[in-house]
Amino acid sequence: MKYVELETHQSFGGQQKRFRHWSVTLDCEMSYSVYLPPDYRNTTLPILYWLSGLTCNDQNFVTKAGAQKYAAELGIILVVPDTSPRGDIIPDAPSYDLGQGASFYVNATQEPWKQNYQMFDYISIELPKLIKRQFKSNGRQSIAGHSMGGHGALMFALKHPGRFCSVSAFAPIVNPMQVPFGRKAFYHYLGDSKETWQVYDSCFLMEHYIDQPFPILIDQGTKDEFLLKQLKPEILETVALKKNWPFQLRWQKDYDHSYFFVSSFIRDHLLFHYRYLK
Amino acid sequence: MKYVELETHQSFGGQQKRFRHWSVTLDCEMSYSVYLPPDYRNTTLPILYWLSGLTCNDQNFVTKAGAQKYAAELGIILVVPDTSPRGDIIPDAPSYDLGQGASFYVNATQEPWKQNYQMFDYISIELPKLIKRQFKSNGRQSIAGHSMGGHGALMFALKHPGRFCSVSAFAPIVNPMQVPFGRKAFYHYLGDSKETWQVYDSCFLMEHYIDQPFPILIDQGTKDEFLLKQLKPEILETVALKKNWPFQLRWQKDYDHSYFFVSSFIRDHLLFHYRYLK
Repeated sequence: MKYVELETHQSFGGQQKRFRHWSVTLDCEMSYSVYLPPDYRNTTLPILYWLSGLTCNDQNFVTKAGAQKYAAELGIILVVPDTSPRGDIIPDAPSYDLGQGASFYVNATQEPWKQNYQMFDYISIELPKLIKRQFKSNGRQSIAGHSMGGHGALMFALKHPGRFCSVSAFAPIVNPMQVPFGRKAFYHYLGDSKETWQVYDSCFLMEHYIDQPFPILIDQGTKDEFLLKQLKPEILETVALKKNWPFQLRWQKDYDHSYFFVSSFIRDHLLFHYRYLK
Repeated sequence: MKYVELETHQSFGGQQKRFRHWSVTLDCEMSYSVYLPPDYRNTTLPILYWLSGLTCNDQNFVTKAGAQKYAAELGIILVVPDTSPRGDIIPDAPSYDLGQGASFYVNATQEPWKQNYQMFDYISIELPKLIKRQFKSNGRQSIAGHSMGGHGALMFALKHPGRFCSVSAFAPIVNPMQVPFGRKAFYHYLGDSKETWQVYDSCFLMEHYIDQPFPILIDQGTKDEFLLKQLKPEILETVALKKNWPFQLRWQKDYDHSYFFVSSFIRDHLLFHYRYLK
């Protein structure tokens, strides 16, 4: 297995593609999806990375969010990785919030996870190198995500000052150290030392951030079934206010946690990123 | 089991809902989906029925086509039924083009299908009655579909003169009597008499249609993997030309048979229907 194009579909005048490759970092085969806008052939374009949430792979966003229309119009390449290492021999757990589909984008230090669950390095280092080798771009990039992927988007940007022009999230887990999803995952992947947890917690990272801040847009549905126990975006908002961060949290009345929510506001997110990517 | 609302999601300011009910016609429980635009509460709106293709249920269109945005903007209720009777005790076949998910929208006359596979009556009679009882509308309606559902949309409109203001289809099976998908299904559901097949064949029905014609829009991808053997929309175009029918067949370069094709042009279809529904 070297590098295989699994699918290509014409979409809004551009092309929705899916690839499979061997990941050295994760020690398994991985799939990822890329949308190339119609202008891709004629010019160099910026990239928006999208990180998905629990139970998703690289296909949920691609088939459900309707982002291709706006990526086509604005000229933004979309790169959508999977949410964890995958495969029959990859460690997994029976619950949906641990193991395959639930990496929380950390580098695991604990057994049985540590051999494969190195998603922080995969998204930070290996995948961008691969994307650079396979696709031309103008070098400008932003990042966005949903739920666990919203945590990922915020956390990657806060860990890599200067790398992303802008960050946005739908219903992100902003404070994983303090909520059940995050505490469970971090305990299993990272052990019980809170110091190893902090460096993946967006609230902690923003609190201690000393570089140039980047614009953040967060949408949160008021009828999101995970809002009160798992998400609590107002905690990050408080930190952002204290740090005078360019930060907008929008409460979307009656929306839930589903892709019906994401698709309803994905246009706003692409327009937001476009402002900083162009 | 009487009538249950399974899901409701806020979507583009309106509501995407899913229901389950007992179908007397099909002798089994059925699910269907409805999108109610933001204006639904304040006024009466028209309805667009959407019929899906092989292997689909009522969810594929709802999650993948991105139609809600335009239904919200234009004020059109979307009604999306399943593609066949469903359930463990409902007859099925191992292949994807026969049995559950593959009704071809006919009233079966043959064993073991005839007890449940009465989709023509379900879509023509039972479902519209149920919709009328559950939702207010202004009484105007149109119909659209994809592939086997495109066959359904054209065929239902041709069988019910005056009922639908307009019809549209993506990659429809226009001449099921003459292509492998249709011949197989019709043989199993209807037996081997061609006379019982004709009344479900859009080319035959248009040829013999004597009422007021209705506008038809068809989109067809040039890289559709089923184009040459199963679809052949130019056969219906020839009939339409002969009958001087208000008919447009658009060839969409490089598009395939997937929902990436449907989502790319669903806006045009909703605008097309809006012209005749308003």
